[in-house]
Amino acid sequence: MLETIRKKLSSAGLEAYIISYGNRFIGQDVLPQEHKLSAVCGFTGSAGAAVITQNKAFLLVDGRYELQASLQVNTEQFTIVPAIPSLLSVCSLLKDENITKIGCDFWNYSIAEINFIKKRFKDIELEDAGNWIAEAEHQDVCIFSRDIKYCGMTREDKCKLVARFLQEQQADYFLFTSSDSVSWLLNIYAKDLPYSPVVRAYALVDIDGNFRLFGNKLKAEFTTESFDDLRQFFENCGSKKILYAANSTPEKIKHFINEETKFYARDDMCQILKAEKNQTELNGMIKAHIRDGVALVKLLNWLEKNPQQTELSVVAKLHDLRAEQKDFFSESFATIAGFADNGAIVHYQPTEQTNKSLQNGNILLLDSGGQYFDGTTDITRTISIGNPDAKIIRDFTYVLKAHIALASARFPLNTGGTKLDAIARAPLWQHCIDYKHGTGHGVSCFGNVHEGPISISIAGSNYPFKENMVTSIEPGIYVNKQYGIRIENLYYTSKVEDNPDYLEFKCLTVVPIDKHLIDKYLLSGGEQQWLNNYHKYVYDCLSAYVNEDERKWLEKACSPL
Amino acid sequence: MLETIRKKLSSAGLEAYIISYGNRFIGQDVLPQEHKLSAVCGFTGSAGAAVITQNKAFLLVDGRYELQASLQVNTEQFTIVPAIPSLLSVCSLLKDENITKIGCDFWNYSIAEINFIKKRFKDIELEDAGNWIAEAEHQDVCIFSRDIKYCGMTREDKCKLVARFLQEQQADYFLFTSSDSVSWLLNIYAKDLPYSPVVRAYALVDIDGNFRLFGNKLKAEFTTESFDDLRQFFENCGSKKILYAANSTPEKIKHFINEETKFYARDDMCQILKAEKNQTELNGMIKAHIRDGVALVKLLNWLEKNPQQTELSVVAKLHDLRAEQKDFFSESFATIAGFADNGAIVHYQPTEQTNKSLQNGNILLLDSGGQYFDGTTDITRTISIGNPDAKIIRDFTYVLKAHIALASARFPLNTGGTKLDAIARAPLWQHCIDYKHGTGHGVSCFGNVHEGPISISIAGSNYPFKENMVTSIEPGIYVNKQYGIRIENLYYTSKVEDNPDYLEFKCLTVVPIDKHLIDKYLLSGGEQQWLNNYHKYVYDCLSAYVNEDERKWLEKACSPL
Repeated sequence: MLETIRKKLSSAGLEAYIISYGNRFIGQDVLPQEHKLSAVCGFTGSAGAAVITQNKAFLLVDGRYELQASLQVNTEQFTIVPAIPSLLSVCSLLKDENITKIGCDFWNYSIAEINFIKKRFKDIELEDAGNWIAEAEHQDVCIFSRDIKYCGMTREDKCKLVARFLQEQQADYFLFTSSDSVSWLLNIYAKDLPYSPVVRAYALVDIDGNFRLFGNKLKAEFTTESFDDLRQFFENCGSKKILYAANSTPEKIKHFINEETKFYARDDMCQILKAEKNQTELNGMIKAHIRDGVALVKLLNWLEKNPQQTELSVVAKLHDLRAEQKDFFSESFATIAGFADNGAIVHYQPTEQTNKSLQNGNILLLDSGGQYFDGTTDITRTISIGNPDAKIIRDFTYVLKAHIALASARFPLNTGGTKLDAIARAPLWQHCIDYKHGTGHGVSCFGNVHEGPISISIAGSNYPFKENMVTSIEPGIYVNKQYGIRIENLYYTSKVEDNPDYLEFKCLTVVPIDKHLIDKYLLSGGEQQWLNNYHKYVYDCLSAYVNEDERKWLEKACSPL
Repeated sequence: MLETIRKKLSSAGLEAYIISYGNRFIGQDVLPQEHKLSAVCGFTGSAGAAVITQNKAFLLVDGRYELQASLQVNTEQFTIVPAIPSLLSVCSLLKDENITKIGCDFWNYSIAEINFIKKRFKDIELEDAGNWIAEAEHQDVCIFSRDIKYCGMTREDKCKLVARFLQEQQADYFLFTSSDSVSWLLNIYAKDLPYSPVVRAYALVDIDGNFRLFGNKLKAEFTTESFDDLRQFFENCGSKKILYAANSTPEKIKHFINEETKFYARDDMCQILKAEKNQTELNGMIKAHIRDGVALVKLLNWLEKNPQQTELSVVAKLHDLRAEQKDFFSESFATIAGFADNGAIVHYQPTEQTNKSLQNGNILLLDSGGQYFDGTTDITRTISIGNPDAKIIRDFTYVLKAHIALASARFPLNTGGTKLDAIARAPLWQHCIDYKHGTGHGVSCFGNVHEGPISISIAGSNYPFKENMVTSIEPGIYVNKQYGIRIENLYYTSKVEDNPDYLEFKCLTVVPIDKHLIDKYLLSGGEQQWLNNYHKYVYDCLSAYVNEDERKWLEKACSPL
């Protein structure tokens, strides 16, 4: 593979070729057979960038994936570079190597990213070299509509919001290129991807609220079109004014635009609209989380009574228990089940080769989620197996303190996520501990389990928090070669009752937090009270939906500290 | 005044004229007779911007000064706009007014700020209209050198650091335009400004470490030059490569530059070097704070025994007590002494008109500081007068919790100030309370009481914290028309003993925190311990330097909760 790429470099007169994780659906996850990094170097994580020169090859991965990359990739061929795998990082690295003639596939990079790079690196020649990695054949994408009882708003009403915005902007069209925006806007979904029900397609909405849908092999109850049709539209649209989202629209699209056409960047309004859940979506999220909680409680009770398990057998059982739940559609991402040292690999997923038996005296980190027609879940529980030692219990309690610090925080309306991030980290910093991932991410209601524009992280988006936004809170501690701990719940923001200028978090996730791992003497009175209240709420939500054996387990798991 | 400006607008063909707070020493405070905003509209605060059009006039001030501006300014003539008074805010406001032809004095705005505005507002024509406000005549500036026993490093050694940087950059000169950089670099000071000992001048350092000093009427033991000499230097310097700091160098300077000259922006290296105090400076800061603490303890004991005071009599007494201390040079800013509702005005300074008597049942907010040859202090204490009510005691205790939250925090080396800010605010946010000012600012060692590049604030610099940096921590609560509370100490950063990747704060300020205002039942065990440890340290530092009467007062003030 490297040899082929290097031959192409020579014939194209380039010094380096960059391979991204994604494709023309920027920011969306890809199918295993579409995973170009996996094809090039074996790395299967869901973020990364490779760059190949005549005599070197680099794989850039962020902190979550450093360990995984070192296990999956031939490090004699590829140097693994710990960095946010953005085009900025790649170009900085290439600049240090004195490389300036660089090729990549302009379908895979947004207009915003290419603009930024061209401004930042005046001496770099970045050109569209197309795709050099063999592509899997496209399969039919069968589109279905999601019922209004789940969506809370018709596609007509949503498109009218877009039309109204176009009128305000005196524009003719809005091109939506983000898959989750398109799905939310038109209430259309598909089972194309294993973990996200979104339709990978672009939507063009006009000033009357009519829409056209463009993609590969789309099958729907309405007419759909190909990317070639989109190209033709652009070539013939004359002096129209078209708005687009610069963060998700590929640079390649610019090549289709006429000189006459007014092609203006705007924020993707669907991203912002869908982040603030409507009441139907919020009710759905609450109900989906109760069913998800039932599945988890069944799993935890089963595991206690049948402790001879492996990571993979737990993953399989959890899948079956979720699948039994009403309105289950799919998992929301590949379950992470990391026992002992596997738990220290932040985005570890067990395989036949790495699968571990659960043995006495350590912990299982279990991060999983479900897509239900009425909502999306994402939960991490760290589960004691036998009698973990005092150091694990101390670290788990620290993580719980960090979780509670943010979960119980109030903060001014419109506070940005980078500020909230420090509130969760501060209790760990106190012990000189940190974690190399974000504290929280937005979550769709039946869509991507990670969605913008909010984010609770040091370097992420500082988008202001509004009411009814859903976020995870998931601090952790990872001790390399020993264990990993993470406690993750989803929450939605709600106005403080007697002061609408402040927000607080209301919990969606209802699953007990393992008390075997808590040293109550490390918790303050307020923290103990938070946990006891949470467990009472969990019991009240779930007890009616489990059998008597499970109810007894739940009662004990939810009893006060 | 407004009429004159409006006539000038007409004759200059402009639609608006902007008046800034500052002059060609950007970011430095100004003398009262140089205060252009005061001349134009009566506002005397130390940040602001006025803009005058043919039929409107605006004064932009930030949250600290909103109340003060509304008291000082004729609001029939001027609309007070609460906003960070940057050129960005002014131009945004003018854009909303459909005004595009704007004049200002290019000596008063940095190259960075003008560049930013020109990029941001493509349709605005911003031009150099010169200064339209009558200037006070310049007085002689008598420069003295500060002893090496205070500085810890000679000007020759500091200039050699600059020379080494110039060699690395293959440049010929570095132009320093920030007064505190110039003073620190050359160890030169003056009594030109009432509160800052810096020399308002520009320094040009060459590749051999030689320097030239440019300013208005400078008198020194070495040769100094005028700004006209600087202009001539630029006009004749041919193809030399000159580095400058874009944030402090006036746009006007660009007009002097030849086409051949290479004029490149770099970070002001003195700002960064001087923020990390050397051991001599740190020892000086510690000693200066002990003397400052002695002055404050004498004041607090005196006030308890002589309670019939006014804001102004407290200010005068405090000045006298500081002035008695060894190595005292000046106050570091105009003392803020705000009793009751005056305390709610964040940067209030008492005048004969506003002066209040201290009466039973409220609190005095006292924010003050000293310049000593060995260090600079800045402290706020909120002092009970008689028996303040439970609401004041509750709020004071909340502010103390916020102060302790950050003062006792540990955090990774290189953490930015915007993250630390949330740690202090979180305990107040919990009660839906916030304060409209930063949590902390950098402090010089004998220089500006506010110095960059660090800052602990929501919108401020996110410059990474290193070892031996000095910052204030000063959360507050302000209840309009009732009272103001602030608790401010200075701290320096120090590496955590057993983990050099983490920093913690070591306290410089040693003055008791008023226990009459603390509800100990609102404090956690850890918070109570922090306060008791702090008070024990204060007593140990000061008890040997006060008389027996004061020692008894101190002993009681520092006894455990």
